[in-house]
Amino acid sequence: MKFFSRFFLVFLFMVVISVFSPAEEGMWPIHEIGRLDLAKLGFQVTAERIFKPGQVSLTDAIVNLSGGTGSFVSADGLIITNHHVAFSAIQRASSVSADYLRNGFLAKTHADEVPAKGYTVRIIESCRDVSAEILSSLNRRMAFAARTQAIEKKMKEIILKTEAENKGKRAEVAEMFPGKTYMLFLYTYLKDVRLVYAPPQAIGNFGGETDNWVWPRHTGDFTFLRAYAAPDGTSADFSPANVPYHPRSYLKVASQGLKEGDRVFILGYPGRTYRHRTASYLAFEENLRMPYVADLNDWQIQEMERLAQGDKALVIQFAARIKGLANTMKNYRSKLTGLKRLHWVAQKETEEKRLIAFIEADPARRKQTGDIIPATAAIYREMTEQFPREIILEQLPRVVNLVQIANTVVEAAHELQKKDVDRESAYMDRNFDKTKERLLLTLKNFHPILDARFLTEMVKRSRVLSGTLRIEPLAALGEGGSAAVEKMVAATRLTDPKAIEALLKQTPEELTQSSDPFIKLALGMFPLYRSLKETQERRKGQLDPLAARLSEVRKEWLKTDFIPDANGTLRMTFGTIRGYSPRDAVYHQPFTTIRGVLEKESASPEFEVPELLKERYAAREFGPFLHSGLQDVPVAMLYDMDTTGGNSGSPVFNARGELVGVNFDRAQEATINDFVWSTDFSRSIAVDIRYVLWVTRYIGGAENLLNELDI
Amino acid sequence: MKFFSRFFLVFLFMVVISVFSPAEEGMWPIHEIGRLDLAKLGFQVTAERIFKPGQVSLTDAIVNLSGGTGSFVSADGLIITNHHVAFSAIQRASSVSADYLRNGFLAKTHADEVPAKGYTVRIIESCRDVSAEILSSLNRRMAFAARTQAIEKKMKEIILKTEAENKGKRAEVAEMFPGKTYMLFLYTYLKDVRLVYAPPQAIGNFGGETDNWVWPRHTGDFTFLRAYAAPDGTSADFSPANVPYHPRSYLKVASQGLKEGDRVFILGYPGRTYRHRTASYLAFEENLRMPYVADLNDWQIQEMERLAQGDKALVIQFAARIKGLANTMKNYRSKLTGLKRLHWVAQKETEEKRLIAFIEADPARRKQTGDIIPATAAIYREMTEQFPREIILEQLPRVVNLVQIANTVVEAAHELQKKDVDRESAYMDRNFDKTKERLLLTLKNFHPILDARFLTEMVKRSRVLSGTLRIEPLAALGEGGSAAVEKMVAATRLTDPKAIEALLKQTPEELTQSSDPFIKLALGMFPLYRSLKETQERRKGQLDPLAARLSEVRKEWLKTDFIPDANGTLRMTFGTIRGYSPRDAVYHQPFTTIRGVLEKESASPEFEVPELLKERYAAREFGPFLHSGLQDVPVAMLYDMDTTGGNSGSPVFNARGELVGVNFDRAQEATINDFVWSTDFSRSIAVDIRYVLWVTRYIGGAENLLNELDI
Repeated sequence: MKFFSRFFLVFLFMVVISVFSPAEEGMWPIHEIGRLDLAKLGFQVTAERIFKPGQVSLTDAIVNLSGGTGSFVSADGLIITNHHVAFSAIQRASSVSADYLRNGFLAKTHADEVPAKGYTVRIIESCRDVSAEILSSLNRRMAFAARTQAIEKKMKEIILKTEAENKGKRAEVAEMFPGKTYMLFLYTYLKDVRLVYAPPQAIGNFGGETDNWVWPRHTGDFTFLRAYAAPDGTSADFSPANVPYHPRSYLKVASQGLKEGDRVFILGYPGRTYRHRTASYLAFEENLRMPYVADLNDWQIQEMERLAQGDKALVIQFAARIKGLANTMKNYRSKLTGLKRLHWVAQKETEEKRLIAFIEADPARRKQTGDIIPATAAIYREMTEQFPREIILEQLPRVVNLVQIANTVVEAAHELQKKDVDRESAYMDRNFDKTKERLLLTLKNFHPILDARFLTEMVKRSRVLSGTLRIEPLAALGEGGSAAVEKMVAATRLTDPKAIEALLKQTPEELTQSSDPFIKLALGMFPLYRSLKETQERRKGQLDPLAARLSEVRKEWLKTDFIPDANGTLRMTFGTIRGYSPRDAVYHQPFTTIRGVLEKESASPEFEVPELLKERYAAREFGPFLHSGLQDVPVAMLYDMDTTGGNSGSPVFNARGELVGVNFDRAQEATINDFVWSTDFSRSIAVDIRYVLWVTRYIGGAENLLNELDI
Repeated sequence: MKFFSRFFLVFLFMVVISVFSPAEEGMWPIHEIGRLDLAKLGFQVTAERIFKPGQVSLTDAIVNLSGGTGSFVSADGLIITNHHVAFSAIQRASSVSADYLRNGFLAKTHADEVPAKGYTVRIIESCRDVSAEILSSLNRRMAFAARTQAIEKKMKEIILKTEAENKGKRAEVAEMFPGKTYMLFLYTYLKDVRLVYAPPQAIGNFGGETDNWVWPRHTGDFTFLRAYAAPDGTSADFSPANVPYHPRSYLKVASQGLKEGDRVFILGYPGRTYRHRTASYLAFEENLRMPYVADLNDWQIQEMERLAQGDKALVIQFAARIKGLANTMKNYRSKLTGLKRLHWVAQKETEEKRLIAFIEADPARRKQTGDIIPATAAIYREMTEQFPREIILEQLPRVVNLVQIANTVVEAAHELQKKDVDRESAYMDRNFDKTKERLLLTLKNFHPILDARFLTEMVKRSRVLSGTLRIEPLAALGEGGSAAVEKMVAATRLTDPKAIEALLKQTPEELTQSSDPFIKLALGMFPLYRSLKETQERRKGQLDPLAARLSEVRKEWLKTDFIPDANGTLRMTFGTIRGYSPRDAVYHQPFTTIRGVLEKESASPEFEVPELLKERYAAREFGPFLHSGLQDVPVAMLYDMDTTGGNSGSPVFNARGELVGVNFDRAQEATINDFVWSTDFSRSIAVDIRYVLWVTRYIGGAENLLNELDI
């Protein structure tokens, strides 16, 4: 017998007990929280107080921002979210002479607030189960890809119909359990968002990448934004005539402290989790996809840092892109460490063997479900074979801005020929403006030397592939070496917003006349991407029903119900303020303090501490934000709630439903949450509201905001 | 006002309270423990039970080994100490075919025990204050160097007289407070020490340099040796006719567990601390000496690792030397971090300013003591100026084996001309055999390519010095570049033990005839070393009385007494099993477990875990060594006792005076102990006796030893 680690035993134990006692794991879909006995769980708020369409509830104060969550904290549309959620907005507003990343930003009046470019706000109005309607579009004779396409088309039809009936609102259909349950969400949708107060990076991003995914944490990761609307209160694009938006509800800020053991909950928009997937999926992630992407990101970051060395303007220009790449890299590497430490693939395989034994034990059950696990594994085998080719196709437009732009131009030309409902989502009328805006914002990241270097690298990677894996149009570029690529970059007009907008109006036929080298490349690549998309639709058509059936048989086996994986829809998670033991003989306590900020100060720019902070602290100017037990201001707090990316900026509530913190990260051991959750190591991190207020008053001098927050 | 860190405040506080309440800091000289109220301090042993010359006491079981401590644990002279204290013995007994470092070593019978080459054992017999006698050799008109020489000569006279009166015993005079108090120690001295059981390196050195000076720790850092004597019980050199030595006393092994908060004490031979030194000394260490040595060691290690890559024999040959260099390097770098974090030099300067104010406040006191701090600082200013030259002279023989050998030969020729009592200690009749033995053992480390590379580097470093700093004989070697150095190494005969022994018999005049290039170099360097020695004697003659007077005035100022700095004599320290908070929101618990060993397992050779350990653990074969609370075997434990280098291998006693662990390291924050001690961060580390016994039984299969230990 081989022995692995503490976690091995813990997990053997978990597998056993999971049958009997449901853990607090779970990102509860907002329409299902009525099933929870919140009073018994230690909360003083009811499910109706949290979410009841048509009545004022807490969810009226929860906003979905680009890639994160926020919450209204005043009657005038003031939003609190994370500094890192607002990062791109701060970057886009910054210049070498007005470096808001470095120095922070404060609008003393509404007139001083600047647009948070590219940011929108969604607020949930209602939701409805549309599974029957969606699944009615399927029939048994359909090919796998056709299934996927039929579901997607049905989703779009429902969205368009709903939006037509609710002018100015936004509809989305979300897959809850893929292939099984679908929910329609209706949202208020605001398009004018502005920057109000961001602390300097030395607070808002204190600890930088070194502390990212790390506890104990000392980052003041918060920023204030404001939503605006037309004078009549309806959604409008940015206009000087717009007025602050008045939300149906906003959160009460709690100045009372929390302590270890207190109950807390979160409302937010967690992105994606993969807990119901098979061992074959996990092995694919562990062995192929995550290591490849982490290493590729690592390489890109190094190239960008080399290029930006000593050039302040480039440092600002690359900041958000580097931050994003580094975040994923560290997340993946932490997950890989976690998977290896837990031997999680082996654990999953063991669990599946036991499930197979359960299936095999009953001939009827075997007949109905015996194919699920082998059929799923077969698809991941195919993906493994195709991986070297598909990862390059997938990463190419992410890595090379000009490829991204050219691909979008070519795809748009094809899609815009179709009826609205038949188009790829990004090219539907309801989305196309946003797609264009995002595309033009990628120009903010563009640098010709970097793009040439990146393309050269991707070409080089493609040239080792042969046979059916070969990517001809890309590999062909390799003949001319990096000089040929640099020539392409010099010759293209895709760096000019006007040229892009003009091209976005052309038909496929017109595009074939283009002499732009990147348009030519994109035209050559287009059939490959189209065929990859069909392959992916076919796989989804196979995998989703398998996953739905797997979920059914596991339910039967474990005699329990499941909560759907996170999918970017509004969820509630609850838990307790608590520390944990990351390793033998070490205990991490659940509150950090300003003292710890000063302890971490070092020569590294990541751990720079503003002089003003040191002065205020030395003078013990804590105001009402002092925690009498700690004799300090609490900076960050830790809890065992179930969060993932997208929960960034989510409000943390005390048991009475008052705001006590802003969620922004997970501890390193909890990156693996996306695959497996455990009270043992799953810990998320918030900035304590007292630090938010202390910084806002004593560092930002933003007394206007404290007044607006009723402090 | 500038704010630094938590420690800043803590220390301001400590400086204040140190006046009023003495902390548990202190390595108590063994003859002073009668001043302690041990019962009130929570111990069930009396001072007489610990040390009473002429009666059987615990100190009869404490042995001073080369560079460390050990204790007798059986009537047959079985000694327990650290694996790292016995490391050189294990290395010297190892070969590629019998790699005891890697595989461990077990003698199943006495006949299988192998010599621990170079190791001796000292056991305290008695001690006596000889301050008056020593200081009587001084008079007011003496020059500074003459003072130092007079004291040294007086010490030697006392030693020789004492040893003459106590045949076969060993005497030493130790400076307690330099320039003020001197103690004469009489020791039993055994010269036949053998290796009995060493666990494999994957246990005894688990965690390697990565975990060195680190808590939480999982190293089974213990080894069993045995002392032998002539059949009549007297001390004898190694002989097959020798028999196991029967100590007057040996320790009882306690199988009961300890828990957090339990009282413990240690008896051992701590090497050196510098807590009574001035800010000028600390600044010299922080700015010059420690960084230089750490970097030089780093460089040497890298060179050795490069050379040994893929060569098993070289890996074994270099192991002990690399371990020693790395240990000092990490210790110095940790100290440097600690000094910077505490702003300790600034703190000391602040304290000294306050002391100066106290001195200046009273004209009589000013007249008597006003010169102390400036005069001390002046000497460190001189040392700072001379540093670039003196550090090369000091390091050269340590770095280059052939220089070490040649210098010893030349120095021996000069010293042996003198009367025994006038010689440098190493060349006195009582020490010269040991000096020769050690010199020949350095050949075990010798490698011609390495020595040439190291000498070339030292030559290079010397060549940047000019004017009075220039080291002519060394710099002159630089003319020929590395080729000339390689030629010297190829030509020398100092790699042949017989040649060295022959040279050690030559007179200075005979040596001048030698054509050996290293003898020639050493003859050229000899006047420089002689003059350096005189400079050092002069400085000591200045510094020691200043230190003695500083101590007096500080006593008066702080209204307290001091414990002398560690000086390689037997000390007692006591304290409590307890964890600590190394930084904000982190708590380190005081016991680690085998589970933690498995958690640390990795692909790195430093974190290899023996398969047998994994099997035994998985089978939960814990025997009587299970800690019921932890449900595991405790591996290492942590306490706030005051230790330093030399305490390695010291027995840790419970309150009843029974053996519960073997001290082996300090936590990283405690490396700075050598300069400053605090209950806040000063923590030392032992291997728990239960892990010692568990490994000995379940990994070593050494049931014979467990029987001998009465387990």
